[in-house]
Amino acid sequence: MYRQKESAMARYLEDFKPGDRYETASVEITDEMIFQFARQYDPQPFHLSREAANQSMFRGLAASGWHVAALTMGLVVRAGLDIANGLVGIDVRLRLPRPTRPGDVLRVTVDILEARASHSHPGWGIVKMRWTTVNQNNEILAEIVPDCWVQARPVGT
Amino acid sequence: MYRQKESAMARYLEDFKPGDRYETASVEITDEMIFQFARQYDPQPFHLSREAANQSMFRGLAASGWHVAALTMGLVVRAGLDIANGLVGIDVRLRLPRPTRPGDVLRVTVDILEARASHSHPGWGIVKMRWTTVNQNNEILAEIVPDCWVQARPVGT
Repeated sequence: MYRQKESAMARYLEDFKPGDRYETASVEITDEMIFQFARQYDPQPFHLSREAANQSMFRGLAASGWHVAALTMGLVVRAGLDIANGLVGIDVRLRLPRPTRPGDVLRVTVDILEARASHSHPGWGIVKMRWTTVNQNNEILAEIVPDCWVQARPVGT
Repeated sequence: MYRQKESAMARYLEDFKPGDRYETASVEITDEMIFQFARQYDPQPFHLSREAANQSMFRGLAASGWHVAALTMGLVVRAGLDIANGLVGIDVRLRLPRPTRPGDVLRVTVDILEARASHSHPGWGIVKMRWTTVNQNNEILAEIVPDCWVQARPVGT
């Protein structure tokens, strides 16, 4: 279907098993990051100004949920899962149990929940993962459950 | 719980009915926008370079799915739903049936699916929406189904 990643590390569908776990690095979110993302993608007062945020249901500055998801993606991409075809979600569930605040230090635990061959796309499969994003106090900020396309190991490799 | 939006336009739980529909403005996505988002949040080769993208499962440059979701959020925020407490998702399902390409012009249809009072949080409710993001050819790029917190109309207003 396309040229595979030229790497001895490339992982295929068969290389993922329920129970596998990966830990990412961490990133601190600042008020400037929150403002910058919000200006472009989620320009609501409680993401743009401390004063407005104090009067809002968040009672203080909070990051856009999409910002938290995007930072989570960046951490997972850089964690080296090394999927041959890359990290490509097709169906994702995102829960945001708690606001993310400036000064929160985000890190992600990646759990492999399921890996199965695709019936509709021979040579491919779906890996269901759970990405749990926590802060420095181990409070869950986001839980992301993506179904990802993962290529099966090519015959003869 | 907090000071409400000072606006005659503010909408509350009771103002949302299944079958209500809103249409957003549109935004064209460019390769520079795709590269910029990817560098920050999703640094995978097929989002960062045309050459790598041509060799990838996308067979050409494609936007990060999180970028498509964030652009969708921006369009919906600016569409003037005027929810008194803002647009705050707690549980979201995101499907990405097709890659988003440079030159695609995104617009979103917002459908209200359900509006119900919260049992756990008196004075609040959940509005389930469906945001369908299409391009200039009416091809579906993303389908986002968020459950949003919406304040009930305060007594006496």
